[in-house]
Amino acid sequence: MAKHDPQLDLLFHALSDPTRRMMLNRLARGPAPVTELAGPTGLKLPTILRHLSVLEDAGLIASQKDGRVRSCAFQPQAMAPMRDWLEEQRAIWEARLDRLDDYVTNLMKEREK
Amino acid sequence: MAKHDPQLDLLFHALSDPTRRMMLNRLARGPAPVTELAGPTGLKLPTILRHLSVLEDAGLIASQKDGRVRSCAFQPQAMAPMRDWLEEQRAIWEARLDRLDDYVTNLMKEREK
Repeated sequence: MAKHDPQLDLLFHALSDPTRRMMLNRLARGPAPVTELAGPTGLKLPTILRHLSVLEDAGLIASQKDGRVRSCAFQPQAMAPMRDWLEEQRAIWEARLDRLDDYVTNLMKEREK
Repeated sequence: MAKHDPQLDLLFHALSDPTRRMMLNRLARGPAPVTELAGPTGLKLPTILRHLSVLEDAGLIASQKDGRVRSCAFQPQAMAPMRDWLEEQRAIWEARLDRLDDYVTNLMKEREK
């Protein structure tokens, strides 16, 4: 049984919202000030800041204040635990398919005898 | 700007909970009845059924009733949109790094002149 990784809760939760995914997609192209991230969403600043805080808690972005401008940057290494988890499930599944395949092959060989 | 894919909301939300990830991890090893999935969680049946329903809404599992036993099966193809989205962000990020790399290389060449 896989042990509970609270970081995965935060990561998957952060990406479960379309506004946050849109922000991350923009930040993957390069750092941006909060106002630029807010632009296409049509959302009010407090809502935007709440979304950014969820992304920051998950480690997906880092933000820093430069004078009066807060700028955000994508932290791609934060994606790794999520990708690893998805890959792990796929590997478990594929190992299962291989075992099924072996089983069927052996069954057919037995029948041919 | 990536358009909104509601399926991604459901998928990332489904995986943001440790109980649901644990269930999926078990189902990747092969189908299982609800009672077996409930076993290690220590949760009551209504809670278990609610978790399973979130996984089923996301398309990650399928369930069927066989007499009095409800059995669940992992649907690995449902993971694909999530993996694709993560890969897309990585590709955008890596393209950006390549451009930065070219920029720095050119800058150094200019200086050497």
